[in-house]
Formats: sequence, structure tokens, C-alpha cells
Amino acid sequence: MGKIVTYGEILQRWSPPGALRIGQGDEWEGQFGGSEANVAVSLAILGNEVGYVSRIPGNAVGDACIRRLKYFGIDVSGIVRGGDRLGTYYFEKAADLRKSIVVYDRNGSSFWSCTPGMFPWKDIFGGCSLFHCSGITCAVSRQAADTTFEAVRTASEMGLRITCDINYRRNLWKYEGADAQGTLHELMQYSDFIFGDQDEWEVATGLPKISEEGMRADSALDMEAYGRYFEQMHRQFPGCSSMMLGLRNQISTNHHTLSALLWHRGTICTTRIFDIEDIVDSVGVGDAFVAAYIHASGKWPDDPQRCLDFSTAAAMLKNSIVGDFNLVNEEEISSWI
Amino acid sequence: MGKIVTYGEILQRWSPPGALRIGQGDEWEGQFGGSEANVAVSLAILGNEVGYVSRIPGNAVGDACIRRLKYFGIDVSGIVRGGDRLGTYYFEKAADLRKSIVVYDRNGSSFWSCTPGMFPWKDIFGGCSLFHCSGITCAVSRQAADTTFEAVRTASEMGLRITCDINYRRNLWKYEGADAQGTLHELMQYSDFIFGDQDEWEVATGLPKISEEGMRADSALDMEAYGRYFEQMHRQFPGCSSMMLGLRNQISTNHHTLSALLWHRGTICTTRIFDIEDIVDSVGVGDAFVAAYIHASGKWPDDPQRCLDFSTAAAMLKNSIVGDFNLVNEEEISSWI
Amino acid sequence: MGKIVTYGEILQRWSPPGALRIGQGDEWEGQFGGSEANVAVSLAILGNEVGYVSRIPGNAVGDACIRRLKYFGIDVSGIVRGGDRLGTYYFEKAADLRKSIVVYDRNGSSFWSCTPGMFPWKDIFGGCSLFHCSGITCAVSRQAADTTFEAVRTASEMGLRITCDINYRRNLWKYEGADAQGTLHELMQYSDFIFGDQDEWEVATGLPKISEEGMRADSALDMEAYGRYFEQMHRQFPGCSSMMLGLRNQISTNHHTLSALLWHRGTICTTRIFDIEDIVDSVGVGDAFVAAYIHASGKWPDDPQRCLDFSTAAAMLKNSIVGDFNLVNEEEISSWI
Amino acid sequence: MGKIVTYGEILQRWSPPGALRIGQGDEWEGQFGGSEANVAVSLAILGNEVGYVSRIPGNAVGDACIRRLKYFGIDVSGIVRGGDRLGTYYFEKAADLRKSIVVYDRNGSSFWSCTPGMFPWKDIFGGCSLFHCSGITCAVSRQAADTTFEAVRTASEMGLRITCDINYRRNLWKYEGADAQGTLHELMQYSDFIFGDQDEWEVATGLPKISEEGMRADSALDMEAYGRYFEQMHRQFPGCSSMMLGLRNQISTNHHTLSALLWHRGTICTTRIFDIEDIVDSVGVGDAFVAAYIHASGKWPDDPQRCLDFSTAAAMLKNSIVGDFNLVNEEEISSWI
Amino acid sequence: MGKIVTYGEILQRWSPPGALRIGQGDEWEGQFGGSEANVAVSLAILGNEVGYVSRIPGNAVGDACIRRLKYFGIDVSGIVRGGDRLGTYYFEKAADLRKSIVVYDRNGSSFWSCTPGMFPWKDIFGGCSLFHCSGITCAVSRQAADTTFEAVRTASEMGLRITCDINYRRNLWKYEGADAQGTLHELMQYSDFIFGDQDEWEVATGLPKISEEGMRADSALDMEAYGRYFEQMHRQFPGCSSMMLGLRNQISTNHHTLSALLWHRGTICTTRIFDIEDIVDSVGVGDAFVAAYIHASGKWPDDPQRCLDFSTAAAMLKNSIVGDFNLVNEEEISSWI
Amino acid sequence: MGKIVTYGEILQRWSPPGALRIGQGDEWEGQFGGSEANVAVSLAILGNEVGYVSRIPGNAVGDACIRRLKYFGIDVSGIVRGGDRLGTYYFEKAADLRKSIVVYDRNGSSFWSCTPGMFPWKDIFGGCSLFHCSGITCAVSRQAADTTFEAVRTASEMGLRITCDINYRRNLWKYEGADAQGTLHELMQYSDFIFGDQDEWEVATGLPKISEEGMRADSALDMEAYGRYFEQMHRQFPGCSSMMLGLRNQISTNHHTLSALLWHRGTICTTRIFDIEDIVDSVGVGDAFVAAYIHASGKWPDDPQRCLDFSTAAAMLKNSIVGDFNLVNEEEISSWI
Repeated sequence: MGKIVTYGEILQRWSPPGALRIGQGDEWEGQFGGSEANVAVSLAILGNEVGYVSRIPGNAVGDACIRRLKYFGIDVSGIVRGGDRLGTYYFEKAADLRKSIVVYDRNGSSFWSCTPGMFPWKDIFGGCSLFHCSGITCAVSRQAADTTFEAVRTASEMGLRITCDINYRRNLWKYEGADAQGTLHELMQYSDFIFGDQDEWEVATGLPKISEEGMRADSALDMEAYGRYFEQMHRQFPGCSSMMLGLRNQISTNHHTLSALLWHRGTICTTRIFDIEDIVDSVGVGDAFVAAYIHASGKWPDDPQRCLDFSTAAAMLKNSIVGDFNLVNEEEISSWI
Repeated sequence: MGKIVTYGEILQRWSPPGALRIGQGDEWEGQFGGSEANVAVSLAILGNEVGYVSRIPGNAVGDACIRRLKYFGIDVSGIVRGGDRLGTYYFEKAADLRKSIVVYDRNGSSFWSCTPGMFPWKDIFGGCSLFHCSGITCAVSRQAADTTFEAVRTASEMGLRITCDINYRRNLWKYEGADAQGTLHELMQYSDFIFGDQDEWEVATGLPKISEEGMRADSALDMEAYGRYFEQMHRQFPGCSSMMLGLRNQISTNHHTLSALLWHRGTICTTRIFDIEDIVDSVGVGDAFVAAYIHASGKWPDDPQRCLDFSTAAAMLKNSIVGDFNLVNEEEISSWI
Repeated sequence: MGKIVTYGEILQRWSPPGALRIGQGDEWEGQFGGSEANVAVSLAILGNEVGYVSRIPGNAVGDACIRRLKYFGIDVSGIVRGGDRLGTYYFEKAADLRKSIVVYDRNGSSFWSCTPGMFPWKDIFGGCSLFHCSGITCAVSRQAADTTFEAVRTASEMGLRITCDINYRRNLWKYEGADAQGTLHELMQYSDFIFGDQDEWEVATGLPKISEEGMRADSALDMEAYGRYFEQMHRQFPGCSSMMLGLRNQISTNHHTLSALLWHRGTICTTRIFDIEDIVDSVGVGDAFVAAYIHASGKWPDDPQRCLDFSTAAAMLKNSIVGDFNLVNEEEISSWI
Repeated sequence: MGKIVTYGEILQRWSPPGALRIGQGDEWEGQFGGSEANVAVSLAILGNEVGYVSRIPGNAVGDACIRRLKYFGIDVSGIVRGGDRLGTYYFEKAADLRKSIVVYDRNGSSFWSCTPGMFPWKDIFGGCSLFHCSGITCAVSRQAADTTFEAVRTASEMGLRITCDINYRRNLWKYEGADAQGTLHELMQYSDFIFGDQDEWEVATGLPKISEEGMRADSALDMEAYGRYFEQMHRQFPGCSSMMLGLRNQISTNHHTLSALLWHRGTICTTRIFDIEDIVDSVGVGDAFVAAYIHASGKWPDDPQRCLDFSTAAAMLKNSIVGDFNLVNEEEISSWI
Repeated sequence: MGKIVTYGEILQRWSPPGALRIGQGDEWEGQFGGSEANVAVSLAILGNEVGYVSRIPGNAVGDACIRRLKYFGIDVSGIVRGGDRLGTYYFEKAADLRKSIVVYDRNGSSFWSCTPGMFPWKDIFGGCSLFHCSGITCAVSRQAADTTFEAVRTASEMGLRITCDINYRRNLWKYEGADAQGTLHELMQYSDFIFGDQDEWEVATGLPKISEEGMRADSALDMEAYGRYFEQMHRQFPGCSSMMLGLRNQISTNHHTLSALLWHRGTICTTRIFDIEDIVDSVGVGDAFVAAYIHASGKWPDDPQRCLDFSTAAAMLKNSIVGDFNLVNEEEISSWI
Repeated sequence: MGKIVTYGEILQRWSPPGALRIGQGDEWEGQFGGSEANVAVSLAILGNEVGYVSRIPGNAVGDACIRRLKYFGIDVSGIVRGGDRLGTYYFEKAADLRKSIVVYDRNGSSFWSCTPGMFPWKDIFGGCSLFHCSGITCAVSRQAADTTFEAVRTASEMGLRITCDINYRRNLWKYEGADAQGTLHELMQYSDFIFGDQDEWEVATGLPKISEEGMRADSALDMEAYGRYFEQMHRQFPGCSSMMLGLRNQISTNHHTLSALLWHRGTICTTRIFDIEDIVDSVGVGDAFVAAYIHASGKWPDDPQRCLDFSTAAAMLKNSIVGDFNLVNEEEISSWI
């Protein structure tokens, strides 16, 4: 597979250590993460040539952020420096039955204010084979949405394969005239591969989800229902060759079951349901699915079952890693399939 | 509801970090806590006007302790400075199947040596509607017990509603002539609301407990037996309008089930049994029950079911919080009822 | 002295631990601070009744910030909750001969967007005797400047004594039409006491400063020159009864000399020059001067020498304290005078 | 029981804190541990007189290692200082379903290069009653193996009781001509007590193991099969009076079941199967079995059931302790039997 | 030299990390230390056989304390377990020009309540050549003072050499009838070697001190005055063969000059004045002097100059060590003489 | 300037935090560093294209090491994976007047065992303009020395500019037949630029050094003596166009003066003597000189004075940075010249 490019916003995340709440103590963990950067990091660890495109302020905080990406060998030459600030958010981790808290602080960020024309997409995409983006970039601000479409149209014209994570966040999409479903639906039209969990597919397609809230490791999925479901989805996105539906049941904060379904050119694959009892950090599980699938589909394009097994094992392992990035290599993932 | 006053000893707690044992490393966590202070903090977070009364030494450690109480907006004007030392204890947390260790070091503390006449109760109670105390203050020393009765009698004369947590600790009550059952029984006579777990009610009443050691989330309680039990309790404390029985089954150190029963003017309410798999810190669960009930009974005096549901959810959430204080607000508790 | 009110922006400060640079490690120290809040904290520790007024977002981060103020017994009832975000800044501490780095991230903060009419100044100032503000609030945004003048005019009309720290920051005052000198000059007209260091007095008055860059513990100041200097300043601010000029010479990052001059109704006082060899944290030294002077001038109104000695000792001690707040009490300060 | 001597290699272990992976951050935990040192520490905590023999470099790292042993009251006079380096290994802890990583770095260590003649065994064993060693010392290097046999033969001639832990590690035994099974079989011939888990007994005897992979707390073991199995083992080691088979089923990283079987002079004892849901650190569980059995068999030589119960409870408690050493005392262990 | 015994109270010390004040954060450093234990640790590191005698409670905290002593190879068989609590103190380190704070919490400790008859002194002193004690043990409580004299008399009768550190603490000596000067004077009569700084010698002898407040590295001491001073001291303690006077000038918290004078059988020795610019921890400097002198005087009994040089270098190095114990060996000390 | 390549060993460094000694606590800092890697990192931060060549083991520790280099944008494609272990060393930092301790543990490392033929030098040097190496690589093992000469000869043949740091370490050069002076002298013959401090130049040339032990910020250097000295050096290395002599006087552990002299084609330049009072970490100061000079000489080839000023300022700033790498950029350095 040739070079892969991903595009989106990377954020500074502030979390109190361990199970502490915001306000308990002055010590914080500050980490970088963001959906498309997470995908880029995974793909780089899996051995791919990867570029990441974003807009990052020209200060010491921006420098640190960019070095963290370089650490994984990512090409950062497509990053534009400028704007006022790096987007941030406060994240109080869930503990026991207590829910997590996210306080977004992204308004006015360098990415939030990026506009069409800022990125030389033709240069960026030169020599590349795949462009990955996600719905979250369209949720930040109107100008960020416009820029995303500019990117995706250029990639499409240049013949790159396009992949997309629906990545719907209810507490974004706040700008005037924001239309999550319309925008997401339009964005997905460019994609050869779409990923989403049950709620996200519902938002992107308007089709009612088939809930798996009670899913246990030995549950049986209603494959007939899923068959009809994928058929309807396929009608909405006829140009898309692969669609993945992530399944996660949160039994408690640290105890999830995890699986996924893959529709590939008319065939549906299922895989093992993992029982994950002692979750370390579940942020970035969706990104782990996506990155592993992109990698696998490049390596084993005619073996969707293997692609699904590999992706799900990668996503399962993400739950054991501190931070957003899925720091596992191909050998570790493959030992589970 | 008007201003609430609580009275008792607040201690410095020394714990090794994480699962370390005493003697593993030189780093310690030092936190403040004590049953009645915990109740005061919860009530303050829930939006009530609260005063806390105690005796605390006039040194830098005492200053830090008092500021921690102010942090939550508690009125500390009733605190008397004096005496030799702040009571302390060493607390090695339980881990896995290994039990916790408590080494009390409270003898000779400023609170231990407080005597009747030290606190201007009439001034303190002026404009207040409720006084909360617990049996543990009578267990520290004879003079502390005498002072507790001085407080409770004054509060009673001034018409305050009195609430009490039985709070029996086997390894206190060591002073000469200490009589746990007699003292607790007498103290409870003043109370409009009494809280205790199964063992505590047994000590306070002499009635054999109805054990719930095997309680699971789907267990059915023997409500007939509890009916007879509450009837007998009611006969012992005829002036008490509400009695709560906390139910906790420790499946393992970090896995408890939790529920409670409430008798309110002849009616018994039950509530959900919570299955808490990943406990962070279970110290102060009883205090969480009490504070939430005091708050709820002031807000919904005619809805004992809601009061019980609210109290139990608050107590469940305490298990997710580091330290003694139940740092959850009304909205977070209410989301569970 | 009656109740004191201060008004300004409080910020979340992010610093790498010790001598680490931004980007070295994921561990951060997160503390709250801001000039006028620092003054409020000092005054509260010195035993005064203090209220703090600001605009703070209605989220968990805002809650933590407000509790930190309560910790010191500050009245927070004048704080208005609202707006998008708490202002923040990144602060990389200086080390050795390497300079510190400040990356401001204050645009769009809750305080930045406060406007006249948001604060019920008449209610806030009821029963108060002194209002303290600083020039930095006028540097944040036009609407913040307008609100500051609204406050200062109301305070003036209600007969409060007004004190002001010039607090000039070159890298603020960025909004359209910002005029530092004009604005500061106008603000100072309301003040009975003005504080500034040499550069700040130069900005506020346009008079060239008398530099003390080479000041050592045994230097002799040119008192004649200062006499003329204060005379000129007095002509610009004829209603001001006391003017303080802070003197600091940064021999190296951790080695400063520190002193001050006080003009009080025509008399100039000098005090000891401190030689501070091992500075822990020099943020908030100016605020320490101001708070100690306000306290001292209330206590010993006819003893300007004592007021100056007390203020300078307080400012010296601030250099030994981690964080913005000057956590020293009257006894500790007085031991130096 | 008289003085006990153990002999082996003690290593410096480098681990990232918590669930972090190697490469996440610059902070590390550095601890000492090694099978026979772990046994020595446990025996010392249980109140026995214990000596530990090894070869440790004559530098500051070696000094720290030896002091750590003294901390537990172990006689270190048999330790020979010399050689180039202390053996080390990197240990990335398992988390969730992610497996642990061990990177051995033991080549060229002071112990690796120890040779027969370096230790004055006759002096060391003077006044001692028991010598404990393990198969791992023969796996490090040929010269270390030769030295082990020198020790065990001397101990045998001097009439000491000999105990041995099979302690097979697949990724050692790398030196030229290494023969794990032959060497282990020969070493065991000297032993009065042999410990091993299922895989280790298989390596030492060549007999296929009776797997207990699905063992749950309520499983029933096939005692007939174990009867035949122990009989065959007894034929291979006719001079051995007690053989223990540790049973551990790793349901997940932090959730094991644990039990053991003991053959003692023809009788087989079984004990409780512990369900350990929240494992803190499972390193050294085998050593905990061994140390507790040596202690118990000296105290209650005619009560094999009690010895087995005591050993298994000790091993269970090890799972709750950070580091290699089983920091539990006799009272804590006895509370479980 | 034969075995050395020291006797006194060892305390748990609680300190906030770095330059933090009590009340800033919940993290604490907990270390053990006490004058005579510090001497014992130094002597053990220097290669001597050492026993330490004290009374320590029979709980987990006491166990940890005793293991810390064993860590250095100290014989702890003379320690009696019992009493209520380990003495503690809070220690806020000095920073910059801010002074340190000590909050003692020793009343009612196991050592405080020790009485004559509790320690089998004759057994303890069997085979020993030197007994070291200090004036601080007589300052804790009357019964502790009585026990000290019991020890010193027995040692004297058994012919041990006795050494004593005056160790005067103004904020102890609080018990009824306490007489610091009389008691210290009497205690010193038993000593062959006495150590004290200028203030301590003044208290013990009533002779006005020769202050060295301005001492710099190149200062010249007034040796005539010291000659007369030592002559007077010698008349008060005619049986004492060596008297050491420690000289320390605290230029600032972290910048001291350090030296000492030694009177040995009529001769006065002087040594280098060290200029110590970056002090890490100055607690235990006196104990470092004493331990090094005891060691040196055993090794080079006829070379008082070398003894003084060695002691002063050891004391200088203590300033570079975290905690009470002087973790430097003979080679490191000797490199400075 | 074109691409730069550096070659050498990178090590894992283990240090106790702060002023702690080895053996105080279980927490360690683990960082990567090594002379030539340090140069590579500095050059990359200064904006150059840099490759680093070494041999690093194919395990998780090696992966982490390589990512750390990528973090700074260094090309790691010339690194060969293989061998047994990453070289390490224990580093106890100096504190106050206590000296640092280095315990090397490099024998048998992947770099130690590298041999000629392992690196495809012709490919590596393709398109490069400068090769930097240092004398330390010849000190590790004979085979490492041979490989260094293989590299330097190839670079020379391919016309690259060669720079060399003498980098003499007394406690290396231990292999049989090692000849420091002969080897270093031969290596320097290839260099266009040589760096060394006074001791290193003495070893490399055999010429007695001109000591600057007493150098203060206002000292005057004996330029005549240096003139003769450089002339003699030039005669030994006639092909070398620039020679730098670093001057450092360690007044105390944390207080150094720092300067340098540069001989460039017959001209000698001097620069400011920096007085550095509060050193954070002085490891890598020499590497900072070298990297900054290489950068400056590429940028301002005809301005040796500016090159020297820039190099010395860079080296001065290194003293303020934690770890081996000089994390300062061109702007920060230039602010000092």
C-alpha cells in the first residue's frame, strides 16, 4: 500500500491522575490525541508510510504536539502552523459506576479557524493512495467542515481511496446552521470504507439501530436483522465497498464486551465477542478499529474475515493502553487471530 | 431547610499509595476525614448551609485541616482551637483478598481531651434547624462522650431536629468504664433519624441482626423478617421517625453489593441493590448515606421512597471517590434514581 | 478595616514540573492564579474579610477554581457563572540562565467576554470599605476594560477607598484600539493607592524610569532623583495619597534583590534591600506587595514606614512559595520587620 | 527448625509504572527480585533464621541490593562480591488482555560468571538445617549450573535437608549443550521437597501434565488421575518425601484461580481453590508456595494438610503485593486456614 | 573497636515534598530519624558492629521502622516492643529566606512512656565497648530521663566508653520539674567525648558562647578565646578526654559554612571551614559529626587532627543527603581529608 | 548545509530522582543519551537534516530508543538492529559538594559488538555533506574502534567534511591493547573540526594543558600562552581548519564558569565567560558546543567569532536542561549573542 494521509484536529487532553476528580489535587496528565491522529499513529506503528495534516499554533505547545507525532515516524510536512491556540479538553475518567466528564475547550482553536485554501491538497496528496478523514472535523466549525470537503473532493479527483469514520459527537455541531445528518451523509458518499458504532450509523443513515446493549461474550447476534440493515445502508452508500459496524456493550466502566460486523461487497462477516474485564483506557477504540482495518485491507484485500478479525483484536487491545494512541504492533494483534 | 451543624473528630489519615503496604517506600498520602466532617462536606456540596464543630490544635496542621473544610464552604466558626495534637490513623488499603489495616493513633488528641463547657452550644445552634452527631464521638474518651451529650441535650432543648449515625467501632470504646451499648442506646433516644448497618443496629439495640452476607444484585430480601425487626427497633426508639438500615455484602475487597432499607413512620421502603465491581475507596459510605438522607428528607419530606433511592445512589457513588469525602453533586446522584 | 473586594480574571496555569521544558513528559502542574485573586488570598490569610468578583464558566473546572478561593475563606458570592471557558496559560519556568516561557490562551474566556451590566456592583459593594483592581483587566478585551471602569466608578460613587496595581503586560493590550497608557492613566485617577514597578510607572505616567538594574543588597539609592520623580507622579495623580514603587533586580533567574519606595502624603520612605539567593517562585511578588500594604495601611494608617517594611517583607517571602498565592501569615511577615 | 540457606541470582527489575508500556515516559520502577531471594525473604518474615548466597558486583548497585536483603533480616555474609554487573530484566506488566513482556539482560552478570570454588560451602552450611535451590540457577550458564551442583552435593554430604523448585524458564537454557530435562532431573534427586506447576513437572519428569486450564473456584479435580500421576513421579524421585503441584488458571490477566496438591509420603492432600479477581502482582507466587511450605513443614511436620492449606493461602496473598517479595506474616496467612 | 550501642527515640517525620508548605497538596514524605538512630546508621555504614536500643510500638508502623534500621545492618535485638504509638513530627522544610516549621507530636509515644527496668541493660551491654546517648532523651519525659541515667550508670559500671551529644532542644523539656541545664550537666559527667554546637555548650555549661555568626570560608577564628573557653569546659568535665565544638553559620537557608574545633587531652585542633552553597538537607549534621568522630577515634586514637578532619568532612557531606541518615561511606569521606 | 550523519553508542541512563542516592527508593528516571546522539538531536532542533547511525537490539527497549530519536525528526534508517542488549549506565547525580557516581554497564552491548562490514557506509553517506564522530566510540571495544575507522575512511574518501569530539573517558579504554592517545591522534587526522576540553586536548596531543581551574567570569586568559598552544596543536593536525577548546571551571557542583576558545585558520577568537550559578544538568555540554558549532559554521562559514559565540551560548544553555539533549532552538541561543 502507498502512503496514507489523515486529516483532523489533535487536542491537548487534561486529566486528573487515576480515579481523582477535577479539583482533587494540582497534578494533571497532559496528553495529545484526536481521532485522525490516532489513526495515523496506529498505521505508522503497523509499518505504513503515513502523513498527518492539521493546523497547529506556532508556539512551544504546538512544537511539542508535532514532535509527539514524529515520535511515531509520521510525516508532519503537511501540518500548517498558525492560529491562536491548540484545542484542549478536560477529561475526568470514569471510575466504578461514576461516569466520565468531558469539558470541551475547542472554540477559537487553530483548527477551528482553518479555512479552504490553507492546505495545498494537491501537493499533499501527491504519491498517496489513501485519504482518511472523519465526521468530527465537520462538527467543529463551518470553516473546518468546508475545508474537509475541499480535501475529500481533491482526494477523490486525484483517485485516492477514501475512508471515513462517522465519529458523531452530540456535544459538538453547535455552530449556526450545523446539520449533522446532512453533512455526514454527504461526506460518506466519497468513502470506500465507512466505520461507525450503532449510534453513529443511526445518525448517518437515519435508520434505527439494532441495539446490542445486553451483549455478552456468548451472545448470538440476529444476523438476519443485520443482513437487512446492511442492505439498506448499502443502498444509501452504493459506492462504498466495505462498511464496519462496531459493537460495544458497557457492562460497567471497566467491563465491556466488544465485537464488530463487516459488510464487504455483499458479504457479512462476524467475529469473536471479546469479554474485557479490566479496561485501562477505552478512548480511541474506534480509531483502533479503523486503522487496523485500513492496514489489513491493504495487506489482505481479498480476505475480509481476516481483516475483521484483525481489526477487532486491535480494538480490543486498545483498551489496555494508557492514552489515545493504540501502541500495539502487528505481531501482538495477530496473536489473537 | 435551615442551617445544619455536625460535631465530631476529624483525623489526619496516612496511607501508602495504591496497593503498597506500610513500609514499602517513603511516599504517603495524607488526607483529612472523619464521620461527621464527611457528612458536613456532602451536605455542603448538596447546597446546604452547614457548620462543623470540633476541637483542633492551634498549629499549621490544624490550619490546613480547617482550610480543607472551608474549601467546601463549611462554616468553621464553631471550631475551638486548642489541645496537643490532631488525631491520626494509619490506613493500609485492602487489595485483592488482603484485608486493610487500621492503626489508630488518637489518644491525647485535641478532640479526645475536649470537655463539657468548651463549646458555646447555644450560640452555635442559634438559627440552626438540625444537629447531626454519631456514636463514634462517645467512643473516643469519657470527656468526649460527656461533651456529646451536652451538645445533644442543648440541641434538643432548643428544638433542633437531631440525627445520629450509630457508627460503632469495636477497637475504640477502650476508656475505663466505657459502655458502648448503654451509651449508644441513650444517645439514640434524642434522634429523629438513626442510621446503622446490620452490626451497628445489633450493638445499639441488642436485637440479633438479619444477615445479608450472600446478597447479590438479584437477591430477594425477607421483608417479613425486616418488618418484625423494624417494629422491635421502633419500640426501643419511639421518638424516632425514620430509621435506615444499610446493607453491604463484601464479595471481595473491590466488589460489593449495596442497598438499604428505610422505615419511615411505620412504612418500610426498599430500593435497588447495586452491584459495584470496581470499588475505588469504600471509606465513608455510611456517611454518604446519612448526608444524602438528611438532604433528601429536607427536600422531599413526604416521599420516603425518593429519600431512600437518593441516599443509596449517593452511597453507591461514594465508592468511586478517592478519600473520605463524597465529592458528588445532586445532579450526579439524581441521574441514578 | 471593613470588607475588601477585588475584581479580575483568575486563570488556570499549566506548568511542567521542576526544570522540565514544555514537551518533556506528560505530567503537568495545574494551578489557579491571577493578580487580583492573589491579592484577595493574601488579604484573607492576613485575617481580613474579602470578596472576589469575576466571571467563571459553569462547569467542573470553574467549580474547582471557586473552591480553591473558598479554601482561603474568600467570599465568592460576587462571582458570576457563565461564558465558554476559563482563561489559561502555559508557563515554562525559568531555570539557570534560561528564560521562562509564557503562552497565553485567554481569548474567548468567560472573563474576556464579560460586559458592563453583568455584575450587580451596588449590591457587591454594600458594606464594603475598599475596592482593589488592576490595569491587567483593561488589557484583556475592550468589554473587560469597560466593565472595570463601571466597577471603579460605582465604587467611587459609593465612597469606597480604591487601590490599583498598574500591572502592565506588554503581550496583552492586543484588541482593536487598545491604548495602554491612556487607559491606565485614567484608571489610576480613581486610586488612593497605586503600586507599580519601574517599567509600569513609566508606562502609566510617561516619565522615564530611574533604573535599578545593578541594585545589590548594599546599594545606595539616589533619593534626590526619586524625590523629583515622586513629585512629578503626584502631579499626575493628585488624589492619590500613597504611591509605591517596587524595585527588583534579577541578578539571575533564582537570585534577585528586592526593595521598594513609598511616597505617602509627601513623605518618602525607604526600606531594607533583600538579597534573595534561592528563589522558589517569583510569580505574584507584586500582588504580595499590594495585599500586604492594603492590610498594613488599614492597621497602621499613620505609620507609612511600618507599612512599607511589612509590604516588602511579605513580597520577599512570596519568593519562597510554590504557586501564585502568598501563603504566609502576619506573624511570619512581622518577624522580618 | 535451624538456619535455612538459599542460593541463586537476584536481579534488578525495571518496570514502567502502572499499565504503561516500555517507551511511555521516563519514569521507571526499579526493584530487586529472584526466585531464591524471594524464598529467603518470605522465610525471614515468617520468623526463620535465613542466609542468602549469591554473587553480586562490588559497586553501589550491589550495595543497594544487599541492603534490601538485610532489610528483612537476612544473613548476607555468604554473598561474594565480584564480577561485572548485576543481572537485570525489563518487565512490562500485563494489562487487561494484553500480555506482559520480559526482556532478559542477564548475560555476563556476576552470577552468570560464578564458578565452582568461589563459595566456601562448608562454612556457609555450618550450623544449617536446610538448603533451598531452584532449577533456574542451572539455566543461566554452564558455570552457574556446575556451582549449583557443587552446593547441593556439599549440602547433601553435610546432611542438610534439601528443597527445590523446578522453576523452568523456556527462554533461558541457551548456553551450548544446555539440557534442561536431564539437568533438572538430576538436581531433583537430591531434594526432600520438590515444587512445580503443571508445565514444570512435565519438563522435569517427561510425564504429560493433567491440565487445569478451565479451573474455577468450584471445579472438581480428577483425583484418580492425580493419584496415578504422583505415583509415577514418586518412582522417578524415590528419595523425595513431599511433592507439591501448583495449580493456576489465568482466566484473565488480573483474574486467576489458584490451588495446589500435595503428595506427602504416599498421601495426597487437596485444598481450597481461591478465586482471585483483582490481582496486583502475580510475580513470585511459586516462591510464596515454597517458602510457606518450608516454614509450615518445619512447624507442623506431621500435618501435611495444614502445610498445604498454609502454603496455598500464602501464595494467594502474594497476588495482592507489589513486587517480588511476599510481604505477609504468619498471622495474616493463618487467618485464611 | 568492639560493638557500639546507641539509645534514644526514633520518630516518623512527615514532610511536604520540595518547597511546599503544610496544606499544599496531599502528598507527603514519611521518613524515620532520630539523633541516636542516625548515629547508629552512620557507624554501621562505616563498618562497625552497632546495636540500637529503643521502645517501639508492636504494630505495622513499628515493624517498618525496625526494618529500616536492619537495612543498614543494625542489631535491633535490644529494641523493646510496646506502648501506644511511635513519636512523630511534622517538618516543613525551609526555603529561600522562609524558616522551617517543626510541629512535634511526641507526647504519649512508646519511648515517652519507657521507664527504668524495661531494658535489660546488662545483657544489652555484654560484649560492647561504647555506649552513645544524647541529651534529647532526657528532654522527652521524666521517665525517659530516668531510664537514660539507668543506662548510662550501668554502662559506666561495666566499663564501657561513653559518648554524649548535648542535643539541646528548646521546645522540649516541657514536663513538670524539667531542668535542662542541671540534667545535661549531670549526664555529661559520664562522658569520655562530648559534642555540641555553640548554643548547646552554653546551655550545658552556663558559659557564654563565642559566636561565629559571620563565619566565612576564609574567616580566622579567635583561638585564644577558644583556648580559655575549652579550659573552662574541661574544669566542668574533668573526666572527659575529648570535646568537640561544631561551628555552623547559616548565611541563608541553603548556604552554610561549617567547621569544628576539637579539644583532646589539652590540645586544640582546627580544621577547614567548608563553604556549602547548595544544601539538600541539613538535618542530622550534628549526628554525622558524632558518628564520624566515634569511628575515627577508634581507628586513629592518637591522631586527633585526623579525627577532626574526618568528622567535619562527614558532617559536610551530610548536607548533600536527603533524610536524616548520613549515607556516605569511609572512602567518600576520606577523599576530603 | 547538506545532510549530516553522526555515529556512536546511545545508552539507557538510570538515575535516582533529584538528590537521592542509589538505593534510596525504587523510583528511577530512565533516559536515553550518548555523545553523538546528543549532537544529532541538537542539530535536528536547529533545523538541519540529520541521520544517526548505531547498532541497537531488536527488542522493545530498542524500539523505545529509536522512537525517541525520531521524536526530534532524526533519520534512523542507518540504525542496524541486532545484538544482545542496549548499553546502560547508572548515574547518581552530584549534589552540593558530593560527587556524582557513574557505574557503566556497557560490556556486551549491541554497539560494543558491532564490527566492520555491518553498516553500508556508502549508502548511508550518499547525499551527505558532513560526518561527525567522537573518540568515545573507539574506547568501547576493539571492534567498535575498527568500525569507527571504517566509517571515517569511507566518509573521507567520499569527500564529506569530518568533525570529531575527542571525548576521552578515563574509565573506558579497557580492552586488551587499547591505546587511547595513539588511536585518538590517528582519528583526529581525518577531522576538519576538533573539539575538546583541556584534559582531552592533553590526551590527544600529549601537550601539557593550560589549566583554567580558577576561572571566574571576570578572569583574563593568557592569550599568548594559548597562541603558542594552538600553534603546536595545528602542527599535529595540519589538515584541521578549526579547533575548539572548551573551558569549564567547576566552582561547585552547581556553579560553573564556562567559556571556549576557537582557532580558525590561524586566528584565535575568545568569547564571554558565563557564570552559571544554578546548574540543572551539565551532562552533554561538550556535545552542545559541537552541535552548535557545526550548525553555525555551516551558516556563517566566514564568521568564526559568531560561530564561537553561538556555540558557547548553546553550551551554557544546556546546563539548564534536564537530560542529555540540548532542547534549545536557534532563537533562544541567538538571544545571548
